[in-house]
Amino acid sequence: MTQKPITIKDIAEKLNISVSTVSRALKDNHEISAQTRKTVQELAKQLGYKPNPIAVALKTHKSHSIGVIVPQIVSTFFATVVKTIEEVADGHGYNVLVISSNESFQKEQKSVEVLMANRADGIILALSHETKDYEHIKMIQESGTPIVLFDRTTNELNVSRVVTDGVTAAFQAVQHLVSEGCKKIALLCGPENVAIGGNRMEGYEKAMEANHLPAKTELIWHCSDFTVEAGKEATRQLLSRKERPDAIFGITDDLAIGAIEAIKEKGLNIPEDIAVVGFSNTKRSRYMNPTVSSINQFPEKIGRAAAELLFDQILNSKHAQIKKEIINCELIVRESSDRLCKTRQMLT
Amino acid sequence: MTQKPITIKDIAEKLNISVSTVSRALKDNHEISAQTRKTVQELAKQLGYKPNPIAVALKTHKSHSIGVIVPQIVSTFFATVVKTIEEVADGHGYNVLVISSNESFQKEQKSVEVLMANRADGIILALSHETKDYEHIKMIQESGTPIVLFDRTTNELNVSRVVTDGVTAAFQAVQHLVSEGCKKIALLCGPENVAIGGNRMEGYEKAMEANHLPAKTELIWHCSDFTVEAGKEATRQLLSRKERPDAIFGITDDLAIGAIEAIKEKGLNIPEDIAVVGFSNTKRSRYMNPTVSSINQFPEKIGRAAAELLFDQILNSKHAQIKKEIINCELIVRESSDRLCKTRQMLT
Repeated sequence: MTQKPITIKDIAEKLNISVSTVSRALKDNHEISAQTRKTVQELAKQLGYKPNPIAVALKTHKSHSIGVIVPQIVSTFFATVVKTIEEVADGHGYNVLVISSNESFQKEQKSVEVLMANRADGIILALSHETKDYEHIKMIQESGTPIVLFDRTTNELNVSRVVTDGVTAAFQAVQHLVSEGCKKIALLCGPENVAIGGNRMEGYEKAMEANHLPAKTELIWHCSDFTVEAGKEATRQLLSRKERPDAIFGITDDLAIGAIEAIKEKGLNIPEDIAVVGFSNTKRSRYMNPTVSSINQFPEKIGRAAAELLFDQILNSKHAQIKKEIINCELIVRESSDRLCKTRQMLT
Repeated sequence: MTQKPITIKDIAEKLNISVSTVSRALKDNHEISAQTRKTVQELAKQLGYKPNPIAVALKTHKSHSIGVIVPQIVSTFFATVVKTIEEVADGHGYNVLVISSNESFQKEQKSVEVLMANRADGIILALSHETKDYEHIKMIQESGTPIVLFDRTTNELNVSRVVTDGVTAAFQAVQHLVSEGCKKIALLCGPENVAIGGNRMEGYEKAMEANHLPAKTELIWHCSDFTVEAGKEATRQLLSRKERPDAIFGITDDLAIGAIEAIKEKGLNIPEDIAVVGFSNTKRSRYMNPTVSSINQFPEKIGRAAAELLFDQILNSKHAQIKKEIINCELIVRESSDRLCKTRQMLT
């Protein structure tokens, strides 16, 4: 069923005139007679001829599309960032092409090639878990294509980026747990060789130190990945020890939700026996039982800032500078860690 | 900072030889001397020359990319469909470009144009809420580009599609509520002028009729949209009436979740006073309090079927036929409607 698109050549052949006459007639060039212009334009319409936009992009080096590469597509955080980028791009009359690297370095490289091949006018990207080599990002920069990294970035490149202040956010989360009377605060983080969440770990350690609490190695648990199951399994192990933690801080909501499942399974009370805080304020955290305290990273702000940095480069290429924007997070206290509220409820 | 990509012409100028010699040298054509081939190839490497993949796609009519247009990107259902399409495409060595129409007919049309311009080898699409005109889909078909519609489809086109059996699924949901002893079963559906969910409404009406229950118009509530807030507002109104329903079936999980919030607000018990069932088994429905009975539409199966139908057209274009695949849904009973389980618990 393949059928090639109609070209100027097809029209020229049908009318037995030259390609350049057709081309000029379609552009309504007055060097061509009114009659010929009419004939050509009518036949073009009838055959469903459309000017080839890639050919136009090849000539003008403008596709009016930007590309966004995200590590995951099934993620409220990344989906919300993309949605906001789309809103900004819409405002500029640009289309947004989204590709998921699915946390694969190889797919991330290939996605960059695909977007470059499609003459994307700019690329916004969050690195995959696997990415440790940045040649593909350098390649984008060297080609002169505007690029902005967000959330999962690297200091190894001189590139515009939008990051959240994970250190301060994690510090606040731990400080809140201390205020609720917790002293043995465990940390659920990712595998040791994965850099993601390193700043959250740093914030945890700083807050523990500021409160003169020992951040013992047995309180820091490297989960096998970032899933609910991994958080549940890690918490089961933590709870089987002699000295039980009185709070668990998961560096993702899924890890925190896994912790909650393991705590419930053990018949312990949340937040009285163990308080729990997650990270990134997924929809789920708001509807769980108990509702889960979490960190709002403001994905809308991240998406907007990244898109604005990109369009600054696209539209003012000569004057655009490399910028780093830091988005502040916000701690949202919910049932899973609100011991004081629970006490108040019991007193009344 | 714009820097044009290196072209064959740049190499030819630097070496003061013809473009066609460079082109042939890069293809290692033996009509060109070994020395010239070496010089050209080394310079090309040094300058970072890359063959222009769009130019290749323009010639070969193959981009090895497929496009997916979804109405929403912040949706576990659509994101999961996309993820599965990506897995199938990966297996065939194809890239997937995703565009969200954001429920806008105009953006859907533009997205089709962008993908056609990028020489997508095929398109998978779920229609936006607004789409009532299908000229853009016909345009894809007429160009010979393989296309598959999924979930939000239309009978007005002769096109391959993957749909779920929403009628049977909704029938099962209502039948389950009847088995739990419910008689006054309300339906929360979308705005009257929106066709989405029409088959779910049909299933509801069929089940009511099969059980000799009157599907009175006052039991059928057209919400202002498909959000939690709309479901909550509709349920508030339903509960303020003299004759209260004893069950609510929301044609989306968000509508059901809104219903649950309104029921709780009124101090009524779920499922004893009012049982609730939603549709599409979002993650949230599994973690809510109470957990929400829902319909699993198997987005993975939908994505796989759609991708396979598309690749059948791409790879066997001569023999591919237009097919309609129906994916059966599954009712998952959880706390929000499991009255019998609750009774058993109370007896023991």
